[in-house]
Amino acid sequence: MNWRNKLVDVTSQNNSLLCVGLDTDGEKIPQFLRETSTTPQLDFNKAIIDATKDLVCAYKLNMAFYEVYGKKGIDVLETTIRYIPNNIIIILDGKRNDIGNTAKKYAQSLFDTYKVDAVTINPYLGKDGITPFLDYSDKCSFILCRTSNPSAGDFQDLMVSSTPLYQIVAQKIREWNVNKNCGAVVGATYPDELKTVRTILGEHIPILIPGVGKQGGDIEKTVKHGTNADGDMALINSSREIIFASVQQDFAEQSRKKAQLVRDEINKYR
Amino acid sequence: MNWRNKLVDVTSQNNSLLCVGLDTDGEKIPQFLRETSTTPQLDFNKAIIDATKDLVCAYKLNMAFYEVYGKKGIDVLETTIRYIPNNIIIILDGKRNDIGNTAKKYAQSLFDTYKVDAVTINPYLGKDGITPFLDYSDKCSFILCRTSNPSAGDFQDLMVSSTPLYQIVAQKIREWNVNKNCGAVVGATYPDELKTVRTILGEHIPILIPGVGKQGGDIEKTVKHGTNADGDMALINSSREIIFASVQQDFAEQSRKKAQLVRDEINKYR
Repeated sequence: MNWRNKLVDVTSQNNSLLCVGLDTDGEKIPQFLRETSTTPQLDFNKAIIDATKDLVCAYKLNMAFYEVYGKKGIDVLETTIRYIPNNIIIILDGKRNDIGNTAKKYAQSLFDTYKVDAVTINPYLGKDGITPFLDYSDKCSFILCRTSNPSAGDFQDLMVSSTPLYQIVAQKIREWNVNKNCGAVVGATYPDELKTVRTILGEHIPILIPGVGKQGGDIEKTVKHGTNADGDMALINSSREIIFASVQQDFAEQSRKKAQLVRDEINKYR
Repeated sequence: MNWRNKLVDVTSQNNSLLCVGLDTDGEKIPQFLRETSTTPQLDFNKAIIDATKDLVCAYKLNMAFYEVYGKKGIDVLETTIRYIPNNIIIILDGKRNDIGNTAKKYAQSLFDTYKVDAVTINPYLGKDGITPFLDYSDKCSFILCRTSNPSAGDFQDLMVSSTPLYQIVAQKIREWNVNKNCGAVVGATYPDELKTVRTILGEHIPILIPGVGKQGGDIEKTVKHGTNADGDMALINSSREIIFASVQQDFAEQSRKKAQLVRDEINKYR
């Protein structure tokens, strides 16, 4: 199914713009799991998914937390992806980028091998590094625009003829949206920039918004500035705050409670 | 051993600035290998390494060509890395990037799990996404500066107060070189930009230069503009032109011949 139809359906079904980030740092998962399970990272993911799958529109898996374990981590990544119910958007957050010839291999890897609905990609190499992803017309590519981290402005805020670079990237994203399958990544930690990007992108391009939760992004501003006029097309990601809500036996139950709180808080402002 | 000592030693020992890119596209390796071997990608890499290991200063493995095969590809990647002789620099070309918290996991993945000497990283997220890599003081991080692809200028050439972005990135690379372990990636397809970047970086920062060979970069200009005053600190990468020099039974022998030609051509201008 086309990613957009799937997103519209699941957002409505679960009444949710919440994306839960499965940034499953092996050193942070509950100790009892690490001591009793031979596959603690996978068991953790399954428990979080079971506990939150009716509360989210998407799961985002950051590849770094799996790659760090080599083959074993890739196995967990693949198995987790297969475990996620079909109706929920899966975003593989790898921030991949390369020249055209190689970008094509990354696109194959993410969309054909892992079979996910959406990915994150880095724009620094320009259009020919992005086109191979956009050629998958029923998949969504979220292009990094204004990221959530403290140093985001080092390059993204540089002024190009009085326009900051991240806004030029946003303009390009709109221009490249020929197959209607571009998205943008904008950090919740920068609400003013988020507002500007939403204005540049218009009503139909989704924004993946990390940075609420541990990073401190404000939910009210995120929703008001990030959604379109219908209160849609924003995927608001929280990772650590939800999945590591507790490191006790009740971790899945606590993650559900936290996910519910965040989802409802988001809905309050839609 | 510190990457710099290793680079100096192997460059001298093999009289070479040539980096061979093991961009081992499974669809391009000789058909007879695909038909007769259960591990054609690995066998191909081993044969190329055996045939060229006295002619190169480095091997660069582009991760996309391995990730596309999931776990199996990661296995080939790991095994190839272990197969490369200890005296040769191994560059893992993943162009990784993320916010600080996650960049740390990527750095662990590349330097601790894969145990390579050097990596390529993307600068779009700014300093806090780069610091976790630079914290590995005996490893080298090549930061994308001016890439070799046709669309490289989409963002990299944007003028920031009359300075193009890629030059600002080069200035930052020099500034971030506190641990003396920064490098830059500049495409051979843009020799004038290469010259400018070498001037900005000074004498001690290595430049990884892809784009000779299939992409058409000129070797004479690459060497003259990319090396330092001693004719060193440039790693000139050729991938497809060397590893796919032949798709017949003699593929390894032909790759050796091509590698020797390219190495000697490089040395002519040092």
